[in-house]
Amino acid sequence: MDIILLGATGSIGTMSLELIKAYNYNLIGVSLGSDIDKSIKIVEEFKPKYICVRKDDDKAFFSKFDCIVFVGDEGLEKLASIKCDMLINALSGSAGLKPLVSAINAKNDVALANKESIVMAGDIIMKLAKKNNVNIYPVDSEHSAIWQCLKGEDINTINNIYITASGGAFRDKKRSELENVSVSEALNHPNWSMGKKITIDSATMMNKGFEVIEAHHLFNIPYNKIKPIMHKESLIHALVEYNDSNIKAIIAPHDMKEAILYAINRGNRIEYNNKLKLTTLHFKNISFKRFPLLKYAIYAGRKGGIMPTVLISSNDAAVNLFLNGKIKFLEIEEIVINELNKTINFKPTLDDIIRVDKEIKERIIGGRLWQL
Amino acid sequence: MDIILLGATGSIGTMSLELIKAYNYNLIGVSLGSDIDKSIKIVEEFKPKYICVRKDDDKAFFSKFDCIVFVGDEGLEKLASIKCDMLINALSGSAGLKPLVSAINAKNDVALANKESIVMAGDIIMKLAKKNNVNIYPVDSEHSAIWQCLKGEDINTINNIYITASGGAFRDKKRSELENVSVSEALNHPNWSMGKKITIDSATMMNKGFEVIEAHHLFNIPYNKIKPIMHKESLIHALVEYNDSNIKAIIAPHDMKEAILYAINRGNRIEYNNKLKLTTLHFKNISFKRFPLLKYAIYAGRKGGIMPTVLISSNDAAVNLFLNGKIKFLEIEEIVINELNKTINFKPTLDDIIRVDKEIKERIIGGRLWQL
Repeated sequence: MDIILLGATGSIGTMSLELIKAYNYNLIGVSLGSDIDKSIKIVEEFKPKYICVRKDDDKAFFSKFDCIVFVGDEGLEKLASIKCDMLINALSGSAGLKPLVSAINAKNDVALANKESIVMAGDIIMKLAKKNNVNIYPVDSEHSAIWQCLKGEDINTINNIYITASGGAFRDKKRSELENVSVSEALNHPNWSMGKKITIDSATMMNKGFEVIEAHHLFNIPYNKIKPIMHKESLIHALVEYNDSNIKAIIAPHDMKEAILYAINRGNRIEYNNKLKLTTLHFKNISFKRFPLLKYAIYAGRKGGIMPTVLISSNDAAVNLFLNGKIKFLEIEEIVINELNKTINFKPTLDDIIRVDKEIKERIIGGRLWQL
Repeated sequence: MDIILLGATGSIGTMSLELIKAYNYNLIGVSLGSDIDKSIKIVEEFKPKYICVRKDDDKAFFSKFDCIVFVGDEGLEKLASIKCDMLINALSGSAGLKPLVSAINAKNDVALANKESIVMAGDIIMKLAKKNNVNIYPVDSEHSAIWQCLKGEDINTINNIYITASGGAFRDKKRSELENVSVSEALNHPNWSMGKKITIDSATMMNKGFEVIEAHHLFNIPYNKIKPIMHKESLIHALVEYNDSNIKAIIAPHDMKEAILYAINRGNRIEYNNKLKLTTLHFKNISFKRFPLLKYAIYAGRKGGIMPTVLISSNDAAVNLFLNGKIKFLEIEEIVINELNKTINFKPTLDDIIRVDKEIKERIIGGRLWQL
């Protein structure tokens, strides 16, 4: 299987590389991050035919390897356009959107870990994928679980989809206790070891909101049938309740590799050993009052148009400020809610989405930096 | 849908009738039990074209209704041979075996609640079903769950099937506390309201042993991949672990109607409202030392031949004696284990199975009555 991997140096990228090695897949193209040592190792080990680097300086450096070198955002789009059996989009944030579009236009099937692209531009992406007869397979553990639960089932018999949430770093804290929490406390996720951004999004429950929007687009399920539920063990990843009152669930260890492997094999199961011991499983309703960003995320998803972009971009900027010690934890919510409240919605093109994303980030981060 | 229902006056029979009424299915044939009032009501309400009664006296009585009346064991076989869309076999004990064979020979698809027949004669039944191109759909909640979990999946990717057990009436008791338990204590099942026989089989865990054997035959899964697990809530009915370490589970309320409806609709989901609230789910390993009959049941299943018949028949007789106050609870185990230990195994025909079943029951019950 010829694979192109976008975002090879991130958390999902690293796990993807481990799988590509273990299963002898053929990495023909890869996009690299700012960690040059890591990037060199990848190129030396996997010998990809195509690479994409961040800057022109890097291009000069990597030219000594026997591969074609692309550069920057434009390079990502070129790389994504090269024909392959599966493109893994593990880019982070809105940077994943344009390469996703390029991949779809090139009729490459996509294993999608970059949830921002589908949240911001779900309607456009799914329409484009349909037009190009391209499949988008989810890499998120929750969506992988939904996908597995829907296998062989009639989509018209779905009553509800429950997406589980661990509750993140502060699930046992009241709102009144969140006033002065530190960055390192927020990064201390109880179940998963993930990138910093998504760990903060877990603590605010924003990540679960993104996942609701993602599920809506990927599986064409109306919002009123998609319900987050608290499940502190993160072992059941999603449940699908059918119209005959049977509920189908997927239980799996905290291991994103299962979801990656399932996606790149198009929903065919491949031997992978990480056996789980069944333990006690808890469920609890999620309070929108305790986690207001979840409510606002679903609101933005339901509204559609430019709102999900405003959601993603303002949250991206706010989390960035929090991680850099510029704002307090609860100010993430304030910033996002303020942005959503002042937005006059419209139906965007892809270019509108890219432009608004950039504008909002610059305004929030720029404004704050000016204030400092 | 034209339905024939065998065992209409029992627990599964009654629920089947409720569904036949609610969904406007057409009950063309029915076998009735010894409760004459209940039987009359069924005939008056559903107006079946064919009925089967226990005794010649009953035949005379029911002749006043506008239907063809069959009598006794032979009558059951004749009834089962009448062409229909679905035959529900809800007979209890070994009485279900010959009518099941008749149904298969008549090319009637079967919704099977009578687990004894498949335990005793699984090899013969499944071969005959294949030959006649007949489908056997499970009505047991555990097997319905397995069936649902296997939907759309490749059977070669199954690592393990976990069948859950509530643990029955005495799950919190040690073996040393079982010496003098009463019949009414044994009938006090924590989760399910079922017939008396199966409730005792739950307390000894024999029922779970039967279910392992049933799963082996219905889904053609080797015994080393079928594992009972304690789950006191009885909300997850079965789990299937795949070779990629994902586990698929079915969660459903304590309501056999879901399994009946799913079976008679051949695994198509039909609107049925008994929504479940997700609560805490516990799992625990089952000790063969605490529940020796489970071990012996799986042993009998693995041995095959006449052993599962000896298992079923000796247990049937022993539970009968216990329910009638003739023996103590732990003597059920003694009797069954003794019978299995002294059996010289052979490959039986259907007639052998019927004969051995009768002989063992007569010997155990007859012998005991003589001792009293």
